[in-house]
Amino acid sequence: MPSYTAPARDTRFVVNEVLDVASYGNLPGFESATPDIIDTVIGEGGRFCAEVLAPLNLSGDEQGCTRHADGSVTTPDGFKDAYKQFCEAGWGTLAQPEQFGGQGMPHVLGFALEEFISSANQAFGMYPGLTNGAVSALLAKGSPEQQEKYLPKMISGEWSGTMNLTEPQCGTDLGLIRTKAEPQADGSYAITGTKIFISAGEHDLTDNIIHLVLAKLPGAPDSTKGISLFVVPKFLVNDDGSVGERNGVSCGSIEEKMGIHANATCVLNYDEAKGWLVGEENKGLAAMFIMMNAARLGVGIQGLSQAEVAYQNAVAYAKDRRQGRALTGPADPEAKADPIIVHPDVRRMLMDAKAFTEGMRALCLWGALLVDLSHKASTEEERAEADAMIGLLTPVIKGYGTDKGYAVATDMQQVFGGHGYIREWGMEQFVRDARIAQIYEGTNGVQAMDLCGRKLAYKGGAAIQAFFKMVGDECSAAKSDETLAPLAEKLEKALGEQQAATMWFMQNAMKNPDDLGAGAHDYMHIMGIVSLGLMWLRMAKVAQAKLASAPDDKAFYETKLATARYYIERFLPDAGALRRKLEAGSEAVMALNEDAFDTAA
Amino acid sequence: MPSYTAPARDTRFVVNEVLDVASYGNLPGFESATPDIIDTVIGEGGRFCAEVLAPLNLSGDEQGCTRHADGSVTTPDGFKDAYKQFCEAGWGTLAQPEQFGGQGMPHVLGFALEEFISSANQAFGMYPGLTNGAVSALLAKGSPEQQEKYLPKMISGEWSGTMNLTEPQCGTDLGLIRTKAEPQADGSYAITGTKIFISAGEHDLTDNIIHLVLAKLPGAPDSTKGISLFVVPKFLVNDDGSVGERNGVSCGSIEEKMGIHANATCVLNYDEAKGWLVGEENKGLAAMFIMMNAARLGVGIQGLSQAEVAYQNAVAYAKDRRQGRALTGPADPEAKADPIIVHPDVRRMLMDAKAFTEGMRALCLWGALLVDLSHKASTEEERAEADAMIGLLTPVIKGYGTDKGYAVATDMQQVFGGHGYIREWGMEQFVRDARIAQIYEGTNGVQAMDLCGRKLAYKGGAAIQAFFKMVGDECSAAKSDETLAPLAEKLEKALGEQQAATMWFMQNAMKNPDDLGAGAHDYMHIMGIVSLGLMWLRMAKVAQAKLASAPDDKAFYETKLATARYYIERFLPDAGALRRKLEAGSEAVMALNEDAFDTAA
Repeated sequence: MPSYTAPARDTRFVVNEVLDVASYGNLPGFESATPDIIDTVIGEGGRFCAEVLAPLNLSGDEQGCTRHADGSVTTPDGFKDAYKQFCEAGWGTLAQPEQFGGQGMPHVLGFALEEFISSANQAFGMYPGLTNGAVSALLAKGSPEQQEKYLPKMISGEWSGTMNLTEPQCGTDLGLIRTKAEPQADGSYAITGTKIFISAGEHDLTDNIIHLVLAKLPGAPDSTKGISLFVVPKFLVNDDGSVGERNGVSCGSIEEKMGIHANATCVLNYDEAKGWLVGEENKGLAAMFIMMNAARLGVGIQGLSQAEVAYQNAVAYAKDRRQGRALTGPADPEAKADPIIVHPDVRRMLMDAKAFTEGMRALCLWGALLVDLSHKASTEEERAEADAMIGLLTPVIKGYGTDKGYAVATDMQQVFGGHGYIREWGMEQFVRDARIAQIYEGTNGVQAMDLCGRKLAYKGGAAIQAFFKMVGDECSAAKSDETLAPLAEKLEKALGEQQAATMWFMQNAMKNPDDLGAGAHDYMHIMGIVSLGLMWLRMAKVAQAKLASAPDDKAFYETKLATARYYIERFLPDAGALRRKLEAGSEAVMALNEDAFDTAA
Repeated sequence: MPSYTAPARDTRFVVNEVLDVASYGNLPGFESATPDIIDTVIGEGGRFCAEVLAPLNLSGDEQGCTRHADGSVTTPDGFKDAYKQFCEAGWGTLAQPEQFGGQGMPHVLGFALEEFISSANQAFGMYPGLTNGAVSALLAKGSPEQQEKYLPKMISGEWSGTMNLTEPQCGTDLGLIRTKAEPQADGSYAITGTKIFISAGEHDLTDNIIHLVLAKLPGAPDSTKGISLFVVPKFLVNDDGSVGERNGVSCGSIEEKMGIHANATCVLNYDEAKGWLVGEENKGLAAMFIMMNAARLGVGIQGLSQAEVAYQNAVAYAKDRRQGRALTGPADPEAKADPIIVHPDVRRMLMDAKAFTEGMRALCLWGALLVDLSHKASTEEERAEADAMIGLLTPVIKGYGTDKGYAVATDMQQVFGGHGYIREWGMEQFVRDARIAQIYEGTNGVQAMDLCGRKLAYKGGAAIQAFFKMVGDECSAAKSDETLAPLAEKLEKALGEQQAATMWFMQNAMKNPDDLGAGAHDYMHIMGIVSLGLMWLRMAKVAQAKLASAPDDKAFYETKLATARYYIERFLPDAGALRRKLEAGSEAVMALNEDAFDTAA
């Protein structure tokens, strides 16, 4: 069975040494995030995930969820108890507002924990993860009564939440929604329609499930400007807060999927279910995007999480499994063969995983800090800047992070040779589970268009210009340091590729928007590579400074510098190739008639 | 349920127009491959695969194989009947020698059919595929008596074959084999040991299974120089050729795997099973490599096959599914949304698949022709040249072809959005089935080392120099043609990257063999990209000539030229990035102590 250890040392490195979260102590919420508390959350949270959640990952995948004749759904053995422990320990309340029973800690800690949860058991993590998304929407758009009614029990974990967007005919294009909301005399709405792919839509972990549902009011515009958001509890909630009668929503079936078997993906049938409008009429999309943005960062973390746990197991296997000899001569002459970690191609895959996961962890936690700063920074200007930057980075974290996360999980499976293909080793599950993260919460193609079609142009390009300036300035500053200079110079070159690609978009996409569409995926990857490069520059800078001050943990910092070098040499070159593809434009991409794609017998 | 159509038009294009197989009519076997016969084999073979094998693919995956208490294994419903039809139609005998009941046709036709079989049902195709491997070894190394005893019934499909290499402690490193062969008084050997991952090791499709087994004679050298090959039938064969008593080999269990569920992957226990030496003592590895080389080409075709069938289904979905609007304005203003094939990012993925599958098909069929020429060309020199070239290309076809095949299958799944993750659509099966091809018959890391550590140096680099000259000459010749010049120029540039990488290996790998090991995987991909580029140049040249002669099928040739352009613009740029990674050498790859890979809590 695979194993998992939360990478607490590395998380502490990012939180304390790179991001220096303690320096934000003057901001609300951060005052309670003292070094001791940070240490406890990371250490104890990591242990909980490793000890309680990880052991249920393989068995949960094998058993899956079961839908019964009455429409009820049971989760795999052990999930209910683990969820109870999760709630009792308060792991779900970490970054939620104290007003509704949360601990009010910074999101940067919540995200750190989210990685551990997802590495240990991605399918489990989706249950509280979806609740978090629904909580965000109610916090932002719910009425005070709705907040009072639902949030305390959702935050405690007593109730869970879902996001209901997709319908059979409608995924990416929410303008196609058909679910109807008929106003009722009592101020509620009768919701009728079919929603599909509803993660955690029905299960046995909580006493109630609070569905947030996109639907159309009578006569609403026939586009995304005509959708509204409703809160539809599985059980109606009595005035005293107790759970009342069953609402008109039921699980019609659960999907057989490639992975995340332990999370129930439901078809939900709404049959005049009682719902209440959240926010304004026809403004449902904006409310949905609040959930979506939080969820997209969470999904980016899933890409990291599966790469990380797959990496850990591949390292253990590569040290244990013996085949062949080192190319430079036997490493262990007493034995009949060397451990496969001596082989450069195995090393290459492990180093690639290490460079990705550590860089991605830094990017996700920086992103989380930006979320905090977008709400809590001292000035409006700082808040706006942080908001614009995390808006820009969100599709990169989601899209690049999950593409590369899947590739790394696949490589780590490859380290196992034939054993990687066998279920009991657990490696193929990591690949199957990682795969969904490229698809849901907006496919990575949608992320690429969000980045290139919306975020680049946001406020006249202010966010991307700020990003360019930030990377450029940090490269310039680092070039004076002998150790950092090679990294800074090559990162600057990759930044140059991104800037050129951006300029190419500006010169061409107005004339032909297909040029933007055809290059968007390449651009997202270029920016992912540059973003992780920035993280590696920051991490190398800290490691370099620490080494100069003769720390206890010398090996840790030396490893950081060696891994930074690997990143420069092996990740950055792709930026140039991607730019060349992008600058080829859309002509060849769009050249064929649709019929030309058909297969002729 | 997914659908499949054999791409017969494109196969005929490669066989007849690009390779001009008819021009080899003077060689043995080719004389019977008249245009009519070629047409019939491709057309009828394709139809058989589409109509009989493809409908069993999804159900076979869901049901899988079952091992019963007595050690017998049953294949999924319908497989036995389909196999019977397959044998009756003679599809397994196509490229087998007439002497033993085969049809003696060129391998190039056999390989064309192999793609169709594997696209339609990869797990099914492995049963006759493994038989083919065993047949190759017996043809090359078996005694006349062994050939007479086993080959006719294996070629007819009455009996099947297997390859038994892997043991629990021994995969890539065959020197670690422990299975023993004790000489018996009657000239046979008693084989004892455990073999794992034996594809088609036990099943209900045939009356007998002929296992080819690597084992060690008493006192044999403790390395790959001490392994011998044995033929071990499941049932002993009587002198009259009838099936006799059960031999001492049994299936201990079948593996639960990520994919290819309909093929039984067996643990085979040999308990003093009666076996007979094939070829010479301690020369088993050479015999095994005969099987392996044929099998590796077959596995490369599997990479193509899953990409192809996934592509076909993605095209159908992209034309049918409506979400959003074309960036250039509504393509179908009457409807509420456009089919997603209008979106450049969807097009990009489809074009990528089309450029890969058509290029890869040409490469595989050229490879098959080289196999034919290595046996049948008129002069010893031509045969040796063909043998060296296919030796060089085999790890590229297997390694690059399956890496890219998996990536394409994954992209095609991505076209489906959330539906791609749901089993009933079949897309996730293509990904799971494609995954194994990167692993078995030597992982792709092993292929990369075979290419860089052995094949590049073969006969003082004669094969790679011949490859360089071939690509260089064809580029030079094409540059005078206005249409072909841009392709030829960019292919020449990519060739330059490969030549530089080769030179870098020569200058560095002698001093530090890890430099070779660290760059081998990159090199294999560079060569894959250049090889497919050569195929696209050849195909574009034919298309260009045909267009000049005003053919009936104008759209087909125009599509070829458009797809060639896509290939140039979107595949070739990676060659430069890969070279830069390779030339970074092994320092950063090998820098860390093994402990530095561990995760610190």
